[in-house]
Amino acid sequence: MNRLLELKEKFEHTRKHSEKICAPLEIEDYVPQPIVDVSPPKWHLGHTTWFFEAFVLEPHAKGYTLFHEDFSFLFNSYYNNAGERVLRPNRGLMSRPPVREVMDYRKFVTEGMLSFLENSPSEEILDIIEIGINHEQQHQELLVYDIKYILGNQPTFPVYGTDFSTQSEKKGGFQTFEEGIYSIGADGKDFCFDNELGQHKVYLQGFEITENLVTNGEYMEFMKAGGYKDFNHWLSEGWDFIQKEGVKAPLYWYEKAGEWHHYTLQGFEKVNPDLPVQHVSFYEAYAYASWKGMRLPTEFEWEVAAEQLNWGQLWEWTYSAYLPYPGFQKAPGALGEYNGKFMSNQNVLRGASVATPKGHSRKTYRNFFHASSRWLFSSFRLVK
Amino acid sequence: MNRLLELKEKFEHTRKHSEKICAPLEIEDYVPQPIVDVSPPKWHLGHTTWFFEAFVLEPHAKGYTLFHEDFSFLFNSYYNNAGERVLRPNRGLMSRPPVREVMDYRKFVTEGMLSFLENSPSEEILDIIEIGINHEQQHQELLVYDIKYILGNQPTFPVYGTDFSTQSEKKGGFQTFEEGIYSIGADGKDFCFDNELGQHKVYLQGFEITENLVTNGEYMEFMKAGGYKDFNHWLSEGWDFIQKEGVKAPLYWYEKAGEWHHYTLQGFEKVNPDLPVQHVSFYEAYAYASWKGMRLPTEFEWEVAAEQLNWGQLWEWTYSAYLPYPGFQKAPGALGEYNGKFMSNQNVLRGASVATPKGHSRKTYRNFFHASSRWLFSSFRLVK
Amino acid sequence: MNRLLELKEKFEHTRKHSEKICAPLEIEDYVPQPIVDVSPPKWHLGHTTWFFEAFVLEPHAKGYTLFHEDFSFLFNSYYNNAGERVLRPNRGLMSRPPVREVMDYRKFVTEGMLSFLENSPSEEILDIIEIGINHEQQHQELLVYDIKYILGNQPTFPVYGTDFSTQSEKKGGFQTFEEGIYSIGADGKDFCFDNELGQHKVYLQGFEITENLVTNGEYMEFMKAGGYKDFNHWLSEGWDFIQKEGVKAPLYWYEKAGEWHHYTLQGFEKVNPDLPVQHVSFYEAYAYASWKGMRLPTEFEWEVAAEQLNWGQLWEWTYSAYLPYPGFQKAPGALGEYNGKFMSNQNVLRGASVATPKGHSRKTYRNFFHASSRWLFSSFRLVK
Amino acid sequence: MNRLLELKEKFEHTRKHSEKICAPLEIEDYVPQPIVDVSPPKWHLGHTTWFFEAFVLEPHAKGYTLFHEDFSFLFNSYYNNAGERVLRPNRGLMSRPPVREVMDYRKFVTEGMLSFLENSPSEEILDIIEIGINHEQQHQELLVYDIKYILGNQPTFPVYGTDFSTQSEKKGGFQTFEEGIYSIGADGKDFCFDNELGQHKVYLQGFEITENLVTNGEYMEFMKAGGYKDFNHWLSEGWDFIQKEGVKAPLYWYEKAGEWHHYTLQGFEKVNPDLPVQHVSFYEAYAYASWKGMRLPTEFEWEVAAEQLNWGQLWEWTYSAYLPYPGFQKAPGALGEYNGKFMSNQNVLRGASVATPKGHSRKTYRNFFHASSRWLFSSFRLVK
Repeated sequence: MNRLLELKEKFEHTRKHSEKICAPLEIEDYVPQPIVDVSPPKWHLGHTTWFFEAFVLEPHAKGYTLFHEDFSFLFNSYYNNAGERVLRPNRGLMSRPPVREVMDYRKFVTEGMLSFLENSPSEEILDIIEIGINHEQQHQELLVYDIKYILGNQPTFPVYGTDFSTQSEKKGGFQTFEEGIYSIGADGKDFCFDNELGQHKVYLQGFEITENLVTNGEYMEFMKAGGYKDFNHWLSEGWDFIQKEGVKAPLYWYEKAGEWHHYTLQGFEKVNPDLPVQHVSFYEAYAYASWKGMRLPTEFEWEVAAEQLNWGQLWEWTYSAYLPYPGFQKAPGALGEYNGKFMSNQNVLRGASVATPKGHSRKTYRNFFHASSRWLFSSFRLVK
Repeated sequence: MNRLLELKEKFEHTRKHSEKICAPLEIEDYVPQPIVDVSPPKWHLGHTTWFFEAFVLEPHAKGYTLFHEDFSFLFNSYYNNAGERVLRPNRGLMSRPPVREVMDYRKFVTEGMLSFLENSPSEEILDIIEIGINHEQQHQELLVYDIKYILGNQPTFPVYGTDFSTQSEKKGGFQTFEEGIYSIGADGKDFCFDNELGQHKVYLQGFEITENLVTNGEYMEFMKAGGYKDFNHWLSEGWDFIQKEGVKAPLYWYEKAGEWHHYTLQGFEKVNPDLPVQHVSFYEAYAYASWKGMRLPTEFEWEVAAEQLNWGQLWEWTYSAYLPYPGFQKAPGALGEYNGKFMSNQNVLRGASVATPKGHSRKTYRNFFHASSRWLFSSFRLVK
Repeated sequence: MNRLLELKEKFEHTRKHSEKICAPLEIEDYVPQPIVDVSPPKWHLGHTTWFFEAFVLEPHAKGYTLFHEDFSFLFNSYYNNAGERVLRPNRGLMSRPPVREVMDYRKFVTEGMLSFLENSPSEEILDIIEIGINHEQQHQELLVYDIKYILGNQPTFPVYGTDFSTQSEKKGGFQTFEEGIYSIGADGKDFCFDNELGQHKVYLQGFEITENLVTNGEYMEFMKAGGYKDFNHWLSEGWDFIQKEGVKAPLYWYEKAGEWHHYTLQGFEKVNPDLPVQHVSFYEAYAYASWKGMRLPTEFEWEVAAEQLNWGQLWEWTYSAYLPYPGFQKAPGALGEYNGKFMSNQNVLRGASVATPKGHSRKTYRNFFHASSRWLFSSFRLVK
Repeated sequence: MNRLLELKEKFEHTRKHSEKICAPLEIEDYVPQPIVDVSPPKWHLGHTTWFFEAFVLEPHAKGYTLFHEDFSFLFNSYYNNAGERVLRPNRGLMSRPPVREVMDYRKFVTEGMLSFLENSPSEEILDIIEIGINHEQQHQELLVYDIKYILGNQPTFPVYGTDFSTQSEKKGGFQTFEEGIYSIGADGKDFCFDNELGQHKVYLQGFEITENLVTNGEYMEFMKAGGYKDFNHWLSEGWDFIQKEGVKAPLYWYEKAGEWHHYTLQGFEKVNPDLPVQHVSFYEAYAYASWKGMRLPTEFEWEVAAEQLNWGQLWEWTYSAYLPYPGFQKAPGALGEYNGKFMSNQNVLRGASVATPKGHSRKTYRNFFHASSRWLFSSFRLVK
């Protein structure tokens, strides 16, 4: 199948998938922004649409008329180069445009794109469209996180559905890797983000890495052993974080009649000890590893080990800061704001999660979040 | 007409009126809480309903079953005695129950009340119902303020409609009142709130009071004369307030091409200099009066003058703190939380506004807000 | 004795008294500002001196040269009209000028004033000097509060000395007053502040007022009865205040081995149940009164009762807002900033305290603080 | 010279040097804590003393009596294992113990240590003493930063003296390094911190590094070119930081009559364009490099290049996160809190500064600060 057809199919599927994720919602669920990190579903739907309008249709589709003049202001996110934007903490106040109109906007732009694709755009434009698809896929994953957070903060704990649930893993041991020079990063033959490029050699010491993610059951042992009360296990800023926020368990966990329960997209449930632990911050992952006398892998160790490991249920915290690879160059213009400018004070996660759209991740993929983030679908494995 | 019939009619009318106020809204507009003072329309609709359920049906209607167990938690406001409540700053995160279900709740309770009223409840219960009606009327006025604030914070300034607009007043001079003993407060023959009771004598010095509210045109002179830049006109906390918040004009005012415009419920408009100034804080009213070499009336002066004045378009700031009248007694139980506990650090406003439901106010009525509040329908007149 | 001599003597005594209050301090104690309300002792010493320099010597003493150009910036407080000023929260960062130099400044200005007084200044200037003396006396009282706060926040609870301690009162009952017209305010024959002027009639209902301040023992009964845990006793903002700040007892109180102790200027001691309760906020006074089924007096009731009551050990909270008397006029220029601009959101206290300089208070004196303030020497009596 | 004698001499010299740094201060300067990062000089003097008392004398010197029981509480910093501590933001409120008593404490412990050293302590104890000396040296550098910050925030800009000033560098070009495997980290033969240990191989790409630090003159070109106004040069969190804090130039810089001046320890001066730029955050260094089309070195590149470069006037920001070296093990007990727990969200600086005590730094030394820190003696060089 040629690239154009493939992209067109992927584009259509991606556009539909965003709407499918939102299908179980009430109109009202599209509106709130309970914390700064979480965006209203309505905003995700508009923003991913705006991307195609602003970077493809407006500059390249002859005679294209904007769906609505205000939308580039309302649905721009961090792209300073692309004009003014609604401040992130105010997104939850935007009751207008209503969901109905955002859906019209989606339809209008999707159809505009499909017409546009009829005219065999250049490879450069296809590149941008491919980024747009991947961009929407990233927001699909955030949509799932944010929907869970919005519903999980309703006092009534509403049910979303059975999608995005995890499975227990087959028990394994450790994989061993030798000291030496390894190759890291993407070769750029297939699609990848700029932050993966710059394939380069790194020198690694020998290491052993667990074949399984840490389970809820194992994590509860850490909790039972007073792990949240002994500062010796914690990074200094991690300790401050759990004190300030009163963190005593993974996000969404509640003790009820002496047993741990948690909010899941299927509703409020007893914690299953066999499933991988989820919704922990980097700080908690670090503390658990420290308590176990082990450590988290670096992102390089993870990438080297990825071939031999099962991964993909939950993103895995690494003890690597999100920094540029040698020779990293950000793209010119607004698309250059995509990755490079976030390269400080964030930690790399590797792998993928049940909320990651099919085909979106790969072993060179570098996800990144702040060390205190807990609303993502995160977990971790250990190294010794 | 006997009391029961009158109350029943008033009850039905009041219930419908709340829904009528919300009719022009999109579902999404029912959700946000842009500032702590503003509650989501959905919440007002549920809360006023909960009042009748919690204080009338649940304790007094035989065999009444709660519409939903969680609702007393979700829609209780400040009534600590009536159980747990959703914290005020979190109301905007409550996407559930959806508006649809809140409307079902309203219908269920309205019908329950109407059946209940068939059975000739006691005078004591009718007293509570009368409070409930007045309570819903108060929330109707807040609904208008809050809807204006929610819509006025949409970057697109949507139109609500032509209700609740003000008229220009016929120009007048001053009314003069002699020094002496006057009677203040309600005699309790008709319905009034507990904070109006305790009719008592006060000794007033002679005073002259303006027959008109200050107009937009007059207020713009104050602005042009640098009124917002000269601390000599301001109370110390008022000065700090306008510095911190960057206040340079009444709420909803924007300078555009050298002319003042403002958001109104009819949309974005040029300011009409003949209309009474609206959406000013007590601090701004004080500063204007000080600049004019006059002062605001006390609530006692206002009440004495009310007979001879035209009032009712906009609430009028007084330079009186909201304090108890001699012999003030709060009601026992949860209804006692209605007024007394707010008697510190608030200023009294007198009169009524275009958003006040018909028949809800009277010359002894004591409204109260913090000195920095601007989202209410406030204005002021002067005394020398 | 004529006015000039009397003022001169009072001036000299006042200047010395400020320094006497600071005598027990270490140099280091002059520097910190633990909370915004508290100013460093060094700052009080400089500021009271600056007042005489800025309002007397600089404008009126021929050939007077400023001690140091920067000092009017460093030691101005709230007098916006008198030029730029160091922001209040930053006073604790001013290590320079050192105490030594502030003392030189005091000496220089005191001597300058004494020379200036040799030349029989006009009555208008004597008026300003009299205000300056009263101003320094007010700061003497604040000095005591602030020193207690600074020392009371040292983990080592250092001893200051035996000055400023209270005595137990002879037990009394109630005084009764009849309904009627009473005269309130100062006649202006002797020195008073502008906020006391405007002697005027008020109409009071009959009332009974306690002859004693509430004692520590009585207050501990309120605490034991769960007074800090039952919101029914509290004003809404008072309840929020004690929740947010974790207030469970008067300021400086600590439970130790099941018994209440407190920091006093004599050191850390067991609470004496016979002494009047001290360091309570208005909110706590209100809650206690409410629990007792009584209320706090208004400032007018207090003033009427003052003739027949023993008072002066501790300032007494009233349930009156600090508002202007009829006909209140603020003085022109910077001295006009003295009182009027604070007339919002504060409560009046009446009486005096053991920290009030001799002769500084009187029955018409209106002291004022925010309802949540606790570091002043405050107490209260009840009315029924 | 044997180790014992050498350490004894270094100990005595170090103890005196701390006091010498403080010699130009007024007593009052020892007290304030203008920002959380800055500690009062008094606190540094006490804390470095407490280290020797708590980790050497108390556990190891027979019959040693604590100077004062409270001091371990007052002068402990981040050592959770060593007991309770005064919260960092409250250090500026500690007027007691006075400086005089802290000096007595220093004398008492210094003499106690010297006596203790007479008895030939074990190598393990000498190791702790060596850490204690290096610990005090680190605080000596912080003392200089903090003194500059305290004095530089006096409105009067007092002079400290001529120590700690920088020199202009001889102009150079670039040094070139080849791709390949390099050895990083300390071999542990001489004293070093735990964070330098774990000598290991890294694979570096080829790079060219400037022989000079960026100068004030070069930095002013960046400023003139609008560098602080173009978000394209900045990391996202860097851009937010300069917006929020209003950063428009390096710390201590002020524009006066169109020319840049800055506060230095010699007083307020015109900025010398030939000197290396100082008091920039990592974010500013990053933005400058980005504007220049280059980048900051990694800490590994810096260490490899250190042999061939002149360094030591100012610490140099690297684009490396502060993370553990392979095989990093923190020491057991309280000393284990020294370094490892800070390994998140900080950036490595390499080199030394004019405020670094002689012999304290080396090419493997890893200094670390938050990306927004500006009060340290920081600068940077570039890589292409």
